[in-house]
Order: sequence, then structure tokens, then C-alpha cells
Amino acid sequence: METTSEQTREWLKSGDSREYFELVAFPTVGADPSRLRDCVACATWLKKWLKGIGAEAELVLPPQRGVSEEKAAALSVPVVFAELKGTEGAPTLLFYGHYDVQPADPLEQWETPPFEPTPRDGRVYARGAQDDKGQFFAFLCGLREFWREAGAEGRMRPNVKILLEGQEESGSTGLFRLLGEAEFRRRIAADVMLVCDTSAASDLRPAIVAGMRGVCHFTVRLEAASRDLHSGEFGGVAPNAAQGMCELLASLHDARGAIAVAGFRDGAVEPTAEELEAATAGAASAAEIAREIGTDPCGGERGVEPVRRGGFDPTIEVNGVHSGYGGPGSKTVIPCEAVAKLSMRLVPGQNPQRCFELVKEHLRARCPGGMRISFPEDSGLSSALKLPLGSPAMHLAEEVLSEMDVRGPVFRWEGASIPVVAALKETSGAAPILVGWGQSGDRIHSPNESFSVRQFLLAKQWGKTIVPRLA
Amino acid sequence: METTSEQTREWLKSGDSREYFELVAFPTVGADPSRLRDCVACATWLKKWLKGIGAEAELVLPPQRGVSEEKAAALSVPVVFAELKGTEGAPTLLFYGHYDVQPADPLEQWETPPFEPTPRDGRVYARGAQDDKGQFFAFLCGLREFWREAGAEGRMRPNVKILLEGQEESGSTGLFRLLGEAEFRRRIAADVMLVCDTSAASDLRPAIVAGMRGVCHFTVRLEAASRDLHSGEFGGVAPNAAQGMCELLASLHDARGAIAVAGFRDGAVEPTAEELEAATAGAASAAEIAREIGTDPCGGERGVEPVRRGGFDPTIEVNGVHSGYGGPGSKTVIPCEAVAKLSMRLVPGQNPQRCFELVKEHLRARCPGGMRISFPEDSGLSSALKLPLGSPAMHLAEEVLSEMDVRGPVFRWEGASIPVVAALKETSGAAPILVGWGQSGDRIHSPNESFSVRQFLLAKQWGKTIVPRLA
Repeated sequence: METTSEQTREWLKSGDSREYFELVAFPTVGADPSRLRDCVACATWLKKWLKGIGAEAELVLPPQRGVSEEKAAALSVPVVFAELKGTEGAPTLLFYGHYDVQPADPLEQWETPPFEPTPRDGRVYARGAQDDKGQFFAFLCGLREFWREAGAEGRMRPNVKILLEGQEESGSTGLFRLLGEAEFRRRIAADVMLVCDTSAASDLRPAIVAGMRGVCHFTVRLEAASRDLHSGEFGGVAPNAAQGMCELLASLHDARGAIAVAGFRDGAVEPTAEELEAATAGAASAAEIAREIGTDPCGGERGVEPVRRGGFDPTIEVNGVHSGYGGPGSKTVIPCEAVAKLSMRLVPGQNPQRCFELVKEHLRARCPGGMRISFPEDSGLSSALKLPLGSPAMHLAEEVLSEMDVRGPVFRWEGASIPVVAALKETSGAAPILVGWGQSGDRIHSPNESFSVRQFLLAKQWGKTIVPRLA
Repeated sequence: METTSEQTREWLKSGDSREYFELVAFPTVGADPSRLRDCVACATWLKKWLKGIGAEAELVLPPQRGVSEEKAAALSVPVVFAELKGTEGAPTLLFYGHYDVQPADPLEQWETPPFEPTPRDGRVYARGAQDDKGQFFAFLCGLREFWREAGAEGRMRPNVKILLEGQEESGSTGLFRLLGEAEFRRRIAADVMLVCDTSAASDLRPAIVAGMRGVCHFTVRLEAASRDLHSGEFGGVAPNAAQGMCELLASLHDARGAIAVAGFRDGAVEPTAEELEAATAGAASAAEIAREIGTDPCGGERGVEPVRRGGFDPTIEVNGVHSGYGGPGSKTVIPCEAVAKLSMRLVPGQNPQRCFELVKEHLRARCPGGMRISFPEDSGLSSALKLPLGSPAMHLAEEVLSEMDVRGPVFRWEGASIPVVAALKETSGAAPILVGWGQSGDRIHSPNESFSVRQFLLAKQWGKTIVPRLA
């Protein structure tokens, strides 16, 4: 299925695209407290939309008892929950998506404003155009079409529960809290769970996720002198927090690029031969990745294949490091403080809490003289997810996707994480099916994120095709 | 000499302080092109002030031929040059100061606005209150008083040349260029050069600078992928510029804190026993420094005394490092770019150009795979300055300061640099005397910089006392 410019013009005139543009225009940066009002507005818009297709829908707030005022604010981002009653006795489907998006910075690198969705050459450019507003909304458009048609024709329909949260990009704090409530767990109980927040293979060949890494984000702060000092007057005398932070972060990997934190990999489950073979079949080649990212894909441990480094090996990445002067010219300071943002990706068998403790121990033990280290923020502790090849849910997805595309699906082990999916799997009792339509060229989390009309139509078709098969 | 609050009130009513407040209020960040207008306004104010004391004064612009448009802008910061004709046949004094200041950021840490000089508890708070506006202007107030009185009484007066530049904090680009002109070198020819831009010992005991480290500032840029990437999707696959920069910067020092760049220290002249003894006598103790900076003064090489690390050893300091996300919460990116601001302090015998090349070689040789390193900016290449103990100029300064303070002066080897002083010494043929009244509690280059009334009055007295002795 290729989209022509004619199809794009058609689509741009459709109700689907009009609503999609409205949805994407909400600047729902869930991690930013100043965007809370926009998150509530977006959730309200979604509730109304879901009622429009016949669902009972409401905004759910996580319980706030026993939390500080500061944390309570973060717990004010609503979860949208809706139910479509299907045929009596039919199985229940839980659909999960997230309406929050990554921050848009660096703003100056956007060619068009991040929250003004702009169509160009068969794609729509905006923060959230793909991740995850584009993907979940296209799926829901497919669900809507099936629901109307099947209702009119009296065909079997499954029970559908829809859960859209607003904090996926910042650790799903509120939803994790809700999952602690027995009443909420009862409400989301389902047989199968569908998530449309992952990627297809190259050329949009369908892909089923068979594993996802876990994740933990945290902030490291290093403090030295009580203020920035003159680098001439105190150079060689005062400890330098920028230099200290560099030494600490450099110590996390050895000269071969392997993680150097003692015990970090203990318990990690190696992939099976079948998994490795399937992953290799579905993976982009090193040359393809190099074209995509603009440089040699030589991160991680030397001598290990990219498919293994990206899907089956854990990582510790520096997401940001900031200390001292960064403007034009020079400033003769010895920085008194340095802050780094780190994240770990974890594989099956690794305990997130234990890994976090090991990294903290490693850094504390190496804290340079005259400095104090602290870990002021952390979020999103979640385990890896392993979805066995050959299960009934996997088979069903394989069948439907083979009907949609003669090439049939590939299996992927995602390096990225949707932390709450493992928890939803446990608490809802549902068997997850993770099929999404992303492409790395969509630039999610980067400036100029986009989603193509072709991808939108595929995600919609997937929704329209898989849902009836669950009835 | 202690100032009482009565003296402070008196001073606050004086013409000196009124003019000083006007001078400090100009936001003369010489490194910031958007402050050019303020630099010109400040230079014009100084020219007028110098004419007011009877000098011929003008604004001099460095030659702009053969430079790019971008560089030409930086060469538009005027140098103020003035001459007071002294007694026929009297020796010539060259006085050097700088009216530019460091950037004021981080702004939020200032208790009062940086360019609204605010008196509080016997001090005046503002960017530039001390460095160098406060110091040179107090000296000039002393010179003015002597000039008027000696003129009225028909006493001998030296010829005085006054040179005030606006780019000391960013490498004295314009003045260095002017020093390349034979005509300008002829104009600044002098017998003795006075600079009031350094520090006194603790408790404001007078101090004479007997050595200064050289300096070189530069920027390191590291580029990896063509954009920031998702740290899940590409974690372990794509190279990480933040991590790469940390590894590069960590490699500049060994585990003992010594500089690890091969050949960097070659040729460095060790201090004499006399110099080390004099420096130790004039230096703050480790405990005093610890109180001052709020942490253990354990920078530089382990096992070496602070007085040696701060005055006689070279340094390579990270003045800033910036890459990726730094806001609240987390952002799952692999940064595609990292920028670091570095500076080296050099000791006698080290060639600045050679040291810079060695550091660049060291970093290039260690540039991580998949990344490109570049050095987009550098400035202020200058050698260390060594002023021999026992010279006639040093003796004169010693004598005058012993009259001003019964404790007599100490000798200091400054870790900080005034890059242009070594060049001025060469080109003017003058013997430098570096006596200043700074204290590390003045917080120069940091938020809440200040200068006390007591320091102002000492610098003024120094000007009023030393100038007649040069006639």
C-alpha cells in the first residue's frame, strides 16, 4: 500500500485528519507542570471523542493520599478510561496509548512550530504526530469504523476498554499509582491487550514486538565549592565539579564500551537462538542504521552485533550533562555544580531496583574529593518484557498482519521501553500484542517529529482488522 | 585602616562614589556583541572623565583590515587612551586597567541586579564592582587627587599614560591587535607600568605580584549522529556525544589529578627556593582556603602543596560542559552534540601555542568512534609572566607599601592571568608593578561580586602615594 498525493489530499479533507490535527495541537508535555492545563484539556477532548463513538468515558485521577504537595501536582494529569460494551459473553480487549509527548526543545531546530501540525510531502510534522498520539488515534479511527459498521450489520463485537494516560514519557507515575488500587485493577481486567506505540520494520513491513527493555531514569548532582570560582585564582586548588562529573560518567563504561558497574549484568537472561535468529531477520543492517542516524552505529560494547546491543543488552546512557559556562567565547570559572541525566535500559532477568542501587554505589564510591554526590530525581523503574514466540496472541497477530501485508510480519526486540506495559500485563491479566507503525525516520523525541499519511492509514487498518478478530 | 560605618556614609556622599556607581552601572560584557553599544558608552564616559582631570583622551579602535565581518564586530570595542603631561623630563608611567566585565549569569543567583550597584554593609555589590572597574577607578581617584594638589603646589609630576581596554575578560583581542602597530607601540612607551587588577593578601595586607600564569581558552565540540536519538531505540547502538565528551575530558588528568597530556609540562621552569618561600609566606593556608570556598581545596595534583598548585603549576580546567537534556524530570535522548569550554593556565617556560597543540592532539587521538571533534573557538594565548624579586621597580613598590601598612607587603604568584600584561611589558618597555586590592571574598566572576569601601580607599591611597614617587 503506497499513498499517492491524491490519497494524501483525500485524507487531509477527512474527519480523521481534522480531529488528529486538533489532538496533536495540545502541547501535552506531561513532565512539565506548566502544561498541566493543556493535559487536562486534551484528556477532556479525548473523553468527548470517545463518547462520540458510543463509549462510556471518564477522566480518572490517581489517589493522592500520603503524597507531598509537589508530587500531588504530578498526580493531577488525568488518565482517560472508556468502555465500549460488546456482544454479550465476548472476550475483552484492553487498548493502551498515551496522549503525553516529549518536551519539544531544542525549539530552534524545528522547521515549523512543534504544536502546529503541518502537512508536508505526505507527512504531518508536530511533536506527538507519531509518538503516541498519531499511532493510538489512527488505531482508534480504525476501531470507530469497525464499531459503526459491525453495529449496523449486527456483527459480533468484543468488549473494548480504552486506557489513555498522560505521563508515559515521564514514568507513568499516576497510572502506576492507579494500578495499586484493587478497584481500578478490576476495571481494566481483559483477555488481550493491544498497544500501538512501537515500530514497523523498514519499508513498513509489519513488526510484532517480542521483547522490550526495562528502564530507569535518574539525575546525578555533584556539588563542590559553595560558588563558581575564578579558574585562575583557584585553578589547581579548588575541585572542579564539571571535571568530577566527567570522570564519574566516564567510569560507567570500560575501554571496550561495556558497562563497568560491578554486578550490573548479574541474572540477565541471554536470548535464545530462535529469538536471535528472528531478531536478526527483522533488524535493519548496520549500513541502514548508519544512513538513518548519520554516523557509524558503534555505541555500546565493541565486537557485539548491533541487533544484540540494541535489543538484548542493557545500557547506561548519558541523556544530558550540564555544568558551568556554555555561551559564546569563554568564562574563567571553576563550576561548583554539575548535573547529569542518566537512564538505564534493562533486559529480562535484571532487577531494576537492584541495578539502580548498584549504579548509585558505583558512583558514590568514586565521588571525587571535595565533592558531594546526590540523586535528587528518579523515575520509571520498570523491568524488561518478554513475550514468548508461539503464544496464541502472537499467532493471531501474525495471521492478521500476514493478511494485511503479503510479506508477513517480522519479530522485534525493542530497545525502547513502555514501562507501564509490563505492569498492565500483570494487573489486567491480558496477553499483550504490541504492533506499531513507527519508522526511525519519524524522529520521535527529536525536532521535526512526523508521521506519514501512509503510516496513519496502516495503523487505522490494523485497528479495523484486529479488533473484530478478538470478538 | 578600618572603615567605620561613618566613613562608609561619608564615602557614599563623595564624588568618587557617585562616579564609581555610574561607571559600574554600564553592562560592559565585552565578550557579548549585543553589549557593544554599552561598551562604547562606557568608554565615552571614561574619556570625558579623563578630560575632566586634565588629560588628553581619545577612543582608539584597533585596525580592522583583513579581518572577517564577524571578527570586525569584536574589534569595535574601543580602547581608551589618555595622557597627562608631567614635569618636563620626568619619567613616564603607563597605567593599565580594563572596563569590561565577566558575563553576569547565572542571573537568578544575584541578590540585587548585577548592573545596579547596591551598597550594603560597607560593600558595593555589582558585576565589575571590583574586577576591574572598582580597582582601576579607585586608583585613578587617587591619581586625580595627587594631580590636583601637586599641580596647585607646583610639585614634580611624572608623565602619565592611561590605557583602559574593554576586552580583557575575552582575550584582549583588540588591544593585542593595536600592539602590532608601531605607531601605537610608540605612544605607550613608558618607564614603569602600573596595573591594579590583582589581590592583596588576607586581611588586606598589601601584596606585590611576582609572577602570573599564562592562559589559553578554547572550545571543544563533539558531534555524533545527525540528530538527538531515542535512547531506547538506539541505546547501545548509536554513539553518545555526552558520554564521549566525558571520556575525552576525563582523559586530560590521570588518577592522581596530574595533567595527562604528553609533553605538556616540558620546559616548565620550577620556582626557586626563594620564590617558594616568599609565596608560602604570603599565601592563605589550606584551612583558610577551605573556609573561603566551602570545600576541601583538593583540586590539581595529589600530594602537592596548594601554594604550588595555585601559582607554579599549570592547569587544564573544564569551565563548562553542555550536552543533551538538562531540565526537570527525564528525556530519553542520546545527545548528538556536546560542547565543552576549557582553559589552560601556564607557567614560565611553557609555550602557549605548543601546549594548545598538544591538548588538541591528545583529544583528537582519543576521539571516540562515530564522532567528529573540532575546536571552533580559542582566545587569549598568552605566556606566563615572571617579575624578578629584587628589581628596582619591585623595591620601590615594597617601600611605598611598607609606608602604607606597617606589616609590609607580601609577594604573590598569581594563578590568574592578565594576558595582555606580558605583551604590554614587551611593547612599552616598561617595568611592571602589579599591586591590587582584591580579596577572594569579593566573588569576582561569580554572582554577587562586590568591593568594600575599605578596599576602594586603599586602592585610592595606593594611587595617590605611588604616582608621586615615579616623578
